[in-house]
Amino acid sequence: MSNSAEPLEGFYAVIPAGGIGSRLWPLSRADAPKFLHDLTGSGSSLLRDTWDRLLPLAGEDRIMVVTGRAHRAAVEEQIPALADLNVVLESEPRDSSAAIGLAAAILEKREPGVIIGSFAADHVIRGARTFNRAVAEAVAVARAGYIATIGIRPTEAAVGFGYIHAPTPASISGAPSALEVDAFVEKPSARVAQEYVESGDYLWNAGMFIAKASVILEELGKTEPELLAGLQQLADAWDTPARGAVVDQVWPKLKKIAIDYSVAEPAAAEGKLMTIPGEFDWDDVGDFASIAKLHSSGFKKDLAILGEGARVLSDSSNGVVVSESGRTIAVVGVNDIVIVDTPDALLVTTTANAQRVKSVVDALRSAGHNDVL
Amino acid sequence: MSNSAEPLEGFYAVIPAGGIGSRLWPLSRADAPKFLHDLTGSGSSLLRDTWDRLLPLAGEDRIMVVTGRAHRAAVEEQIPALADLNVVLESEPRDSSAAIGLAAAILEKREPGVIIGSFAADHVIRGARTFNRAVAEAVAVARAGYIATIGIRPTEAAVGFGYIHAPTPASISGAPSALEVDAFVEKPSARVAQEYVESGDYLWNAGMFIAKASVILEELGKTEPELLAGLQQLADAWDTPARGAVVDQVWPKLKKIAIDYSVAEPAAAEGKLMTIPGEFDWDDVGDFASIAKLHSSGFKKDLAILGEGARVLSDSSNGVVVSESGRTIAVVGVNDIVIVDTPDALLVTTTANAQRVKSVVDALRSAGHNDVL
Repeated sequence: MSNSAEPLEGFYAVIPAGGIGSRLWPLSRADAPKFLHDLTGSGSSLLRDTWDRLLPLAGEDRIMVVTGRAHRAAVEEQIPALADLNVVLESEPRDSSAAIGLAAAILEKREPGVIIGSFAADHVIRGARTFNRAVAEAVAVARAGYIATIGIRPTEAAVGFGYIHAPTPASISGAPSALEVDAFVEKPSARVAQEYVESGDYLWNAGMFIAKASVILEELGKTEPELLAGLQQLADAWDTPARGAVVDQVWPKLKKIAIDYSVAEPAAAEGKLMTIPGEFDWDDVGDFASIAKLHSSGFKKDLAILGEGARVLSDSSNGVVVSESGRTIAVVGVNDIVIVDTPDALLVTTTANAQRVKSVVDALRSAGHNDVL
Repeated sequence: MSNSAEPLEGFYAVIPAGGIGSRLWPLSRADAPKFLHDLTGSGSSLLRDTWDRLLPLAGEDRIMVVTGRAHRAAVEEQIPALADLNVVLESEPRDSSAAIGLAAAILEKREPGVIIGSFAADHVIRGARTFNRAVAEAVAVARAGYIATIGIRPTEAAVGFGYIHAPTPASISGAPSALEVDAFVEKPSARVAQEYVESGDYLWNAGMFIAKASVILEELGKTEPELLAGLQQLADAWDTPARGAVVDQVWPKLKKIAIDYSVAEPAAAEGKLMTIPGEFDWDDVGDFASIAKLHSSGFKKDLAILGEGARVLSDSSNGVVVSESGRTIAVVGVNDIVIVDTPDALLVTTTANAQRVKSVVDALRSAGHNDVL
């Protein structure tokens, strides 16, 4: 267990920065996805917050960002220190097995035996010291040949997350809090979620995976051999002049599958997956209700107000106003409201309906209104 | 009683076009008051609708508009046929006694014995034939030397309007439905409003007054002799080169008082006020809840959507969206909502809170945000 300021030895952080975040429309768009926004009022984007969080653990030269070609400029603007070597550009989204698997294949080729840790670009984490301790333990688990995931100790019976069932302590040097993962379980009903939380044997699946790159590739080869072959082909060409041609040829054909299904669940079934309970605050900021909740702490019942120079008059409580247009916004007598005001699109809904925002995006797409997507 | 296409003999219509309509912010503004907006989806402004309604009753050359100097261009754009002779410009608002009294004084000077009828520029009326019949009866009442008001037969126990108590039929030639007005009563409680409506003896006060100009001036002279003297001074100078100087000197000093208090109530107490029950649909469109109601008829439960080229996606009912910015607006799971989207200001409230919009305007004024008022 380490809490030092030194980066973890042999560790490389990977940030898959993909996913638009449709439930955060019209703030999140195809050309301005969730990870590029400041959803916490921190003054920096979620991507930048993620980078800053990983910096002491991996070091500036050992953080790789996997993102879409379209976001290259925005990502580099967010992270000026990001070296070309650490940018992996996808010509199109192929889901997390391809994104993380490619990073693993490239890094394993460059540095055999490397341990990688994958951390989403668009989650919110508060509590750096506990996060750092958890990652350090996860790296110890990875060094022992397992795949580690950092599960989040539930603070409520949430139904919006998947859970990790891990009732049994593991015994791994340097990872005193590690638990063996029995299984991943899908988003539960409210009743089941309550049981999970009360049992104390379940953690939230936050999608953070830490393992030797070789172990991830080995597990992937068992379930998705064709996908692995494609990734190896890409990795072989990556640091050569052939990269462009091979990417154009191979990448678009890769199978789209989440790493949870191709690697994590099979590894859990084999007893190769351990989890470190994360005691820090975590949220995937999946919708505007999450944002409202992130901003309401304790007795604070005001509307959450996001946006530089926002001019909001409100007598309302427990909702969120996102002001991206600079306009004066008056909110009268509407509690739990969600107002997202952008230059070309406006959303008005409630926190209870926040999950349904995705259906708006679907409807706009069906109607051909791609200009606002 | 007349229902002909010929204008009513000796009749002059006056349209006081003042009042911003603060409860309709941010649609109504100091430089774009309520009467300049199309609140019904008719395709024309309330002022233009009022003009069109009065045209067959008075004729194009006999409709006078009293408005603020700042609105001259907008008014003339709305009504290209409006002659200079029929435009009375106020250098600043001095309430309805001054506005209507000045029109009466000018017209009486030009045409002794003229009957004038004053009709607000920003009300909605549907049912031209019944309206025309009511005005014709009111003119008959005026010709007999009384002041006539057209009261609206209540369709519900509204608490947002004043009422006219008129239980006794009058007996006036040409005005078979005329009733003697006992008294005007202020906006009642819900219980009292219910009693009023059930009694059948009460009408809504719609602020429409029809009388000989001389009678209005005579009544005004009894209660507000100084105000009358000022108005006579203005009228004497009006059609002379001295107009500008006299306006600058006299107008700003005129007492601000509603014509209800200076003329109508005292005349009622003297037995000089008669009312014609109006059986047409009428609304003063006082707030966004009124607009929502105007647009929801019968089983139609959709959101009312106002604004040219509005692009609104909604699964919500019984509210109103005003789109003046051309943006895409998505409304998810919020019934009875009021959304007013303008280029520089956005309002979100509910129909139940519609009356409270005025407080937003007050708050913005206090905060010095005059740019959006």
